[in-house]
Amino acid sequence: MIIVMRKSATEEQIQLVMKAVTDEGLEPRRLDGVERTVIACIGDERATSAERFEVLEGVDRVMPVLQDYKLASRDGALERTRVPVRDVIIGDREIVVMAGPCSVESEEQIVSTARAVKAAGARILRGGAFKPRTSPYAFQGLAEDGLKLLATAREETGLPIVTEVMDPHNVELVGRYTDMYQIGARNVQNYALLREVGQTRIPVLLKRGMSTTLKEFVFAAEYILAGGNPHVVLCERGIRTFETATRNTLDLNALPVLQEWTHLPVCIDPSHGVGVTRWVPPLARAAVAAGADALMLEVHPDPAHAWSDGAQSLDFEGFAEAMDGIRRVAAAVDRTLPQPVA
Amino acid sequence: MIIVMRKSATEEQIQLVMKAVTDEGLEPRRLDGVERTVIACIGDERATSAERFEVLEGVDRVMPVLQDYKLASRDGALERTRVPVRDVIIGDREIVVMAGPCSVESEEQIVSTARAVKAAGARILRGGAFKPRTSPYAFQGLAEDGLKLLATAREETGLPIVTEVMDPHNVELVGRYTDMYQIGARNVQNYALLREVGQTRIPVLLKRGMSTTLKEFVFAAEYILAGGNPHVVLCERGIRTFETATRNTLDLNALPVLQEWTHLPVCIDPSHGVGVTRWVPPLARAAVAAGADALMLEVHPDPAHAWSDGAQSLDFEGFAEAMDGIRRVAAAVDRTLPQPVA
Amino acid sequence: MIIVMRKSATEEQIQLVMKAVTDEGLEPRRLDGVERTVIACIGDERATSAERFEVLEGVDRVMPVLQDYKLASRDGALERTRVPVRDVIIGDREIVVMAGPCSVESEEQIVSTARAVKAAGARILRGGAFKPRTSPYAFQGLAEDGLKLLATAREETGLPIVTEVMDPHNVELVGRYTDMYQIGARNVQNYALLREVGQTRIPVLLKRGMSTTLKEFVFAAEYILAGGNPHVVLCERGIRTFETATRNTLDLNALPVLQEWTHLPVCIDPSHGVGVTRWVPPLARAAVAAGADALMLEVHPDPAHAWSDGAQSLDFEGFAEAMDGIRRVAAAVDRTLPQPVA
Amino acid sequence: MIIVMRKSATEEQIQLVMKAVTDEGLEPRRLDGVERTVIACIGDERATSAERFEVLEGVDRVMPVLQDYKLASRDGALERTRVPVRDVIIGDREIVVMAGPCSVESEEQIVSTARAVKAAGARILRGGAFKPRTSPYAFQGLAEDGLKLLATAREETGLPIVTEVMDPHNVELVGRYTDMYQIGARNVQNYALLREVGQTRIPVLLKRGMSTTLKEFVFAAEYILAGGNPHVVLCERGIRTFETATRNTLDLNALPVLQEWTHLPVCIDPSHGVGVTRWVPPLARAAVAAGADALMLEVHPDPAHAWSDGAQSLDFEGFAEAMDGIRRVAAAVDRTLPQPVA
Repeated sequence: MIIVMRKSATEEQIQLVMKAVTDEGLEPRRLDGVERTVIACIGDERATSAERFEVLEGVDRVMPVLQDYKLASRDGALERTRVPVRDVIIGDREIVVMAGPCSVESEEQIVSTARAVKAAGARILRGGAFKPRTSPYAFQGLAEDGLKLLATAREETGLPIVTEVMDPHNVELVGRYTDMYQIGARNVQNYALLREVGQTRIPVLLKRGMSTTLKEFVFAAEYILAGGNPHVVLCERGIRTFETATRNTLDLNALPVLQEWTHLPVCIDPSHGVGVTRWVPPLARAAVAAGADALMLEVHPDPAHAWSDGAQSLDFEGFAEAMDGIRRVAAAVDRTLPQPVA
Repeated sequence: MIIVMRKSATEEQIQLVMKAVTDEGLEPRRLDGVERTVIACIGDERATSAERFEVLEGVDRVMPVLQDYKLASRDGALERTRVPVRDVIIGDREIVVMAGPCSVESEEQIVSTARAVKAAGARILRGGAFKPRTSPYAFQGLAEDGLKLLATAREETGLPIVTEVMDPHNVELVGRYTDMYQIGARNVQNYALLREVGQTRIPVLLKRGMSTTLKEFVFAAEYILAGGNPHVVLCERGIRTFETATRNTLDLNALPVLQEWTHLPVCIDPSHGVGVTRWVPPLARAAVAAGADALMLEVHPDPAHAWSDGAQSLDFEGFAEAMDGIRRVAAAVDRTLPQPVA
Repeated sequence: MIIVMRKSATEEQIQLVMKAVTDEGLEPRRLDGVERTVIACIGDERATSAERFEVLEGVDRVMPVLQDYKLASRDGALERTRVPVRDVIIGDREIVVMAGPCSVESEEQIVSTARAVKAAGARILRGGAFKPRTSPYAFQGLAEDGLKLLATAREETGLPIVTEVMDPHNVELVGRYTDMYQIGARNVQNYALLREVGQTRIPVLLKRGMSTTLKEFVFAAEYILAGGNPHVVLCERGIRTFETATRNTLDLNALPVLQEWTHLPVCIDPSHGVGVTRWVPPLARAAVAAGADALMLEVHPDPAHAWSDGAQSLDFEGFAEAMDGIRRVAAAVDRTLPQPVA
Repeated sequence: MIIVMRKSATEEQIQLVMKAVTDEGLEPRRLDGVERTVIACIGDERATSAERFEVLEGVDRVMPVLQDYKLASRDGALERTRVPVRDVIIGDREIVVMAGPCSVESEEQIVSTARAVKAAGARILRGGAFKPRTSPYAFQGLAEDGLKLLATAREETGLPIVTEVMDPHNVELVGRYTDMYQIGARNVQNYALLREVGQTRIPVLLKRGMSTTLKEFVFAAEYILAGGNPHVVLCERGIRTFETATRNTLDLNALPVLQEWTHLPVCIDPSHGVGVTRWVPPLARAAVAAGADALMLEVHPDPAHAWSDGAQSLDFEGFAEAMDGIRRVAAAVDRTLPQPVA
């Protein structure tokens, strides 16, 4: 930690700050500059906090040096993490596509979608049974009935499933059905929920919140890892900015940053990231070109009649076409995507 | 709902959209303009959603006309809501100040703070027993021990208490001690939690999230109201913007907007809104000048040694001085603040 | 400047960085921490830049210690600056209200407005002759004819005038008429224009841009000051955020921050800051309560027929009422506002 | 235009609004809904503005239907625009890479860079002679000397050049040397400058501002087109958001949106968009995968000693490697990039 004193700081104030540093178990090193004095603190600053010093008289600013997350950090990690979702591995050379409808609506809908996305090269089926909705009057999901339908689709196709859990009360219930939990953007700092899934060993797809910095996002993953669950995939799904032409602003900068900072695989969700079906395929290709390990895409048999998110869902034909484009780009960056089944 | 067709829309597409409108139980009215056709939908659009139409061929945009929230809306409300917290009423002529430390740390700390803030004119004691922290390694609060200390401070001073609940599992536990729940910014769209406090009749201080639009914020309140709990106070506490000089950007625009849209009282939290102690008093005065019904202020006996948020906490003397300034501004807008006790 | 090395930095990399620091005329001080090495640079860092070191091998981050602006800085200033606009002083105990229409439209419009705002207590007349408009097809202002009408209104009422200059070509022309230049939000980093007004001695009202950080804003003022023109007033007028309920987000946090960082007076423009007439008065009061030295308010004889910004303009009666509220709050913070003339 | 009346609007207010619509030369169509009345206006709404109606009594909201830009709009355009920069065409199947240093520093620097980027497949040389800098004390560019050095590099290599113009006074001067103007992000709404380059027939690379919406961005282009200059290339270079890990947030959503709305070619600048050299290549590949027509990349012989933007500049080897990756992705989306010259 580096403590910058004000120009006007008195000798007495400097002495008090140095004493405070010592009291926190750190070693102060004083640097008298031309205009100001700076105090560098040697030791493990994770044991204290910048706030302790910011409030002292004569202090201008406190600048931390170390990051606080350890388990998610790439420093010290021997290799990148590979997350197993049944027989599918996220974080390998193959790009894993998770596809399916926003909401599970019926057996026919989910089973036909599972078949279609599998045929086009997807490896995991997504579908929501518990839906977070802005309005309490909007459709909130089929709940356990939806989980059962997902399980049926898994039996029919062999695709593992990923589905959202919103409530700590439901972690056990959802865990009885799903192969991977999804934590949605609104819950990225719902620490009770993060802790609860951290107690399981079921893989977690953790979505970045609408205004979560990348640093906060890694800390959210750290909550899960600290609970003992090592199977975390980070998912960028668009952030909230001033722009209103698109639903969100897909932040592909997050890819190289997260891959440099952490050893966790990174997934991109262009469906939420841009929010308009016809703009999804170019951004899916972009995500792969920038190094995504996985993609999440919304697919529905009949988007015009979807119960939610129809405006950003691909139909079966659109999905197959998008996959063809993604496959070509994947090859151009030495990654693979399963071939479609005729 | 207004459906704007593309310039290039065909007659057949227009007919299909009109049919879809009818199928949703609304009455379509066609308007052929110079360049485009617009279809206005007559009826209660709350029964459907814009997405149904956005995905149809030939549709350019869909513009909703009605708001979706009913219980929070000022339309139809006979008068502004007054929220009772024991003997204190939020939403009256008197401005209610809730003050206290970020975290409850010890009996001496919380009791001495309760006495000091009461003497200066505060009516409710705040203090955190469960703390949401970015890092899993930071201090997370004293939990039930903290709740007991708050109850002790209430006995000693008669001040009602407000404290945060983060986990649906703890709603019952916290409710055994507190006079008012606080839902924090990170949980404003934690619907499981909102529903749970909506089942109680304990008043709720609902904080706006860092990137929650005012419309989404009112919808979050609607979740609580829809559960049957009418005692909701909205609290603006700073939003996240590009500016880094301050911790957040306090959005005082929210005051007249929320008071026009809803009948609920509005509280302002300048401590989090600006994040630096010496900048808190001017923004507290501003909040009152703009019409705040309540203020939440962080106060600590010794901010330099606070376990959290010391950098934005007032000490007792600073709080008393701030209250003097607030009291003068309150009078200038025909509101009151209790006199200090010598 | 503080240079933080990566954990993995080699001794050779550290030596090269220390040499680079010496080459820049600074003195390096090495600090070997538990996990990393930090190099503090002693000397005037304004002579170099962080970028020089960020690109060296083994460097993790570079943190500047000093601010780069000197003339605007409160450090070293003997007292707060008072800006004279003819006989009006901005930065004194009296709060200076600048009021008038968005666009100058006709002699009757501007003269009647000047009389009305003067009667209610305004001290400076505002009005646009050159209008920056998003669309090239929108009304762009009356140009020099507008300036002449402003001069007429000044003759009739004695009020000094402030009007926008957008084009370096017009600085001389506008300067022949106006008592104070306004630099609009879109031009806050139009350095050619800043330099040009910096060459004059006409006072400048500099508006913050929609996404200008406070630090960048002070640097923009520094361009004018560095040209030799000491008469700068900073004006916050709302920033661009994710919120769409209001035209902009008025950032009143800027008041205490700018007043701590600089010695320049600060003006607030709630008309643009919130964008809806009926929400302007509470935010004007808030600005005064938080310490504004001046206010800029849009006033029009008939907002429903204004050529621009009608939706945020007060009519004469609304303005007089707003001034009454502002006057009471001003008194509550020991400031004054001229009494209305019957 | 659609005018939504308040629920509480009286018959008289409705009649007055309908009259105002007629007065503006539009035809009002009244729609009495279950809860509210809506008035649709038939005719060319470009002749009026929403503000005219927003201020009328009883009006809740006004929603425009038509876009205001005509020349930039894809509606009505026969085909996508191809912008010729000497013998290079932007907007064809070939992806045009513009590369070079942030600032022109010396003949050796610019000529060696021109040779290196040409050898690796770039088609246009970039380099700044007039630099917009946040601080007035930072290096501001070599001015005309820099332009001469660019011209020398063009002679040596045959590469056309693009360079920034910041000041309307310099449009003629810069035009004597350059093959393409660059308008920087800070000047995207500097209308005096846009008009001035609109009077020439020299192609313009127009950069999006840090907080410019895509709609405003297209309007800025419309200023140039309306002046008679049809040669405009739009350039996304990162927007300002809450995220601080990267210099800006590169908004690749802009690509499909701008290509749908307009007929103009779109360029992406990942150097400014992410701001850290090692993160530039993946985002350059992403831009191409999403459909970019051109890329702008910062390249410097020795980034560690660059006078500006060293932290985001590629060296010659890094650039050649990045181009190899871009070339492969280009092929995967049926675009081309010139082969490197051994």
